[in-house]
Amino acid sequence: MREVAVIGIGQTKVDEHWDKSLRELAGIAALSAIQDAGLNQVDALYVGNMMSGSANHQQQLGAYIADWVGLRYAESFKLESACSSGSSAFRTALMAVASGSIDSAVAVGVEKMTDSPGSEITAELATAADSDWEVSQGVSFVALNALIMRRYMFEYGWQKSDFAPFSMNAHANAVHNPFARFRKPITEKQYLEAGMVSDPINLMDASAVGDGSAAIVVVPLEKLSFTKSHPIIKIIGSASATDSIAIHDRKDPLWLKAAEISSKKAYAQAGISPKDIDLFELHDAFSIMAALSLEASGFIERGKGPTLGLNGEIRPDGKIPIATRGGLKARGHPVGATGMYQLVEVVQQLRHTAEGSQVEGAKIGMAQNIGGSGSNIVTHILERVN
Amino acid sequence: MREVAVIGIGQTKVDEHWDKSLRELAGIAALSAIQDAGLNQVDALYVGNMMSGSANHQQQLGAYIADWVGLRYAESFKLESACSSGSSAFRTALMAVASGSIDSAVAVGVEKMTDSPGSEITAELATAADSDWEVSQGVSFVALNALIMRRYMFEYGWQKSDFAPFSMNAHANAVHNPFARFRKPITEKQYLEAGMVSDPINLMDASAVGDGSAAIVVVPLEKLSFTKSHPIIKIIGSASATDSIAIHDRKDPLWLKAAEISSKKAYAQAGISPKDIDLFELHDAFSIMAALSLEASGFIERGKGPTLGLNGEIRPDGKIPIATRGGLKARGHPVGATGMYQLVEVVQQLRHTAEGSQVEGAKIGMAQNIGGSGSNIVTHILERVN
Repeated sequence: MREVAVIGIGQTKVDEHWDKSLRELAGIAALSAIQDAGLNQVDALYVGNMMSGSANHQQQLGAYIADWVGLRYAESFKLESACSSGSSAFRTALMAVASGSIDSAVAVGVEKMTDSPGSEITAELATAADSDWEVSQGVSFVALNALIMRRYMFEYGWQKSDFAPFSMNAHANAVHNPFARFRKPITEKQYLEAGMVSDPINLMDASAVGDGSAAIVVVPLEKLSFTKSHPIIKIIGSASATDSIAIHDRKDPLWLKAAEISSKKAYAQAGISPKDIDLFELHDAFSIMAALSLEASGFIERGKGPTLGLNGEIRPDGKIPIATRGGLKARGHPVGATGMYQLVEVVQQLRHTAEGSQVEGAKIGMAQNIGGSGSNIVTHILERVN
Repeated sequence: MREVAVIGIGQTKVDEHWDKSLRELAGIAALSAIQDAGLNQVDALYVGNMMSGSANHQQQLGAYIADWVGLRYAESFKLESACSSGSSAFRTALMAVASGSIDSAVAVGVEKMTDSPGSEITAELATAADSDWEVSQGVSFVALNALIMRRYMFEYGWQKSDFAPFSMNAHANAVHNPFARFRKPITEKQYLEAGMVSDPINLMDASAVGDGSAAIVVVPLEKLSFTKSHPIIKIIGSASATDSIAIHDRKDPLWLKAAEISSKKAYAQAGISPKDIDLFELHDAFSIMAALSLEASGFIERGKGPTLGLNGEIRPDGKIPIATRGGLKARGHPVGATGMYQLVEVVQQLRHTAEGSQVEGAKIGMAQNIGGSGSNIVTHILERVN
């Protein structure tokens, strides 16, 4: 298995991009990444996307995007695992290069959601849940997460205000990220008074959908002589795991088993433990998911997730910084692109270019992307080598 | 790069499966393949599917199917490249195992199309073409292929009847395949008198949509001691390539450049040439595509594809047998599953279990799966080792 390194990153702002088509969005991110890598082309392009077939009436995003960015004839196809589609694309690029079958690849996550009416997007997001046993009961994706949050508060005795730091930290960090959608800090009062979406999840617990694309170029570590402009960043851990698609089928709905499995595998590959992680780009699609991710990935014991927020440990100067560029909450959550945004942000931190929210001396960063309500979780660990 | 072998195959009949859900269909094929491999489980499940998000209101097929077949917690995600989604899943399984990241994987292609009205399916199939520059002009996917066929007949002087052998051969072979949808031979008269769909493509040029699933288990060749029940079948060539998604953007709309590129790469990896191929499961979604695939893959010179049919060379006892179990035309074309059906059929031939249409002494077989109107083409070459 060849070792694989990241040599280029690119992204668009998360926004309502009514003036750009799906392929333009993806093209901007992919071309930026290829340019940042100092290359003119790559051998393959792997696309992470969830809902283009329904939201944009366009499948076959591989050929669709590859041709647009000047990669006609390259290998290209799409990966889908709901909201973790972006990381699945990155993992595929990694395996393709590690196998020796492909010598350079760009993984690009893209989603364009704001062209569709909100009711349609809500229905499309629900296709990440179990159509037969969840969605047919009329439950939306937010409502599923609300059920989890309500149960978590009941089991472990947390109050609504205890989740405020997750949202406040995300918004505070997004102020410094020009690619983030919401660049205003929020107060605890604003958090507590935000409009309710699905009790107990309010607007400040929930990430917003949006349009956006992010991309990364990977090559074999052994071929790195051709780029000298950036510090070398190696992928030292990569794993994914699934869980039941329906929440009620899980033994413990308050435990992200797929996060536990994929993070443990990634730690083992990297030969490290959670205390070695300098920052953690987790999947705060809802604030409850930030708490559950921190617990299942070994950063704090079960039921204690909010403690890290309340103690200030999730801030860029804390013990385990999260959402350092805004997270899903404030950078935004264009679902199939999100996993790639997380990875791009980890790379920025390891390059020490995360201006305004830089984790000092960051050397090892982790990204974890959740598909569905925890039914697919992809974990990557990256290390700065020089 | 580890060498990879096929050790298990499974499939459902292609049919209107109104009594089975999407996950049941995929589950039957995946479990059959795992059982055929003599295993109880595998490390990962990669799903090839095109349109479940719209046709079945279900995304996240990885977790959805993995849990159903007893693989909860395994790695699993979906691959999409329109009608070549099945082969993209197989190629991903191959790269995952070759990379050393995964030790055993099942690739499963599945599509359930007959629950949706025909008009919806026509619209969903059109998402494989360019939404901005083809579909918005009102052209359907069949119409795009009809334009190609009409041009081909004009350029090279072929008559409609010259394409009859493609359809007749497919139907003759399907008679012997219990998993095929249409198991009746057809005459030249029936071919010529079939109802027109989009001139010059009539019902007997076009493959039918359907419901179905097919699956294959792959493992590293070096770990093959644990199965002794089947001949060892090694993957000796694997490549994919893209072309422009819109046909009018191609320099030559009558040449499948992505077939040429991916087949040449696969031949080079295998160290063979077209004359070494004992059978070729090609993508006869329309009879014109059979002709173009034979040409671009090096079996006959440009513009001469129909000659092979007219001379009987495409039959099981001919020089280059195609559609040996019915092909897309008569086995059926559940789009995201088709690539996996082709590969399962190649394995049957190499195991010498293709009863009724066995290619005598078959040792090397090729499968080629086309996404869109040639915008994504995946080629695999398999060899029987013992």
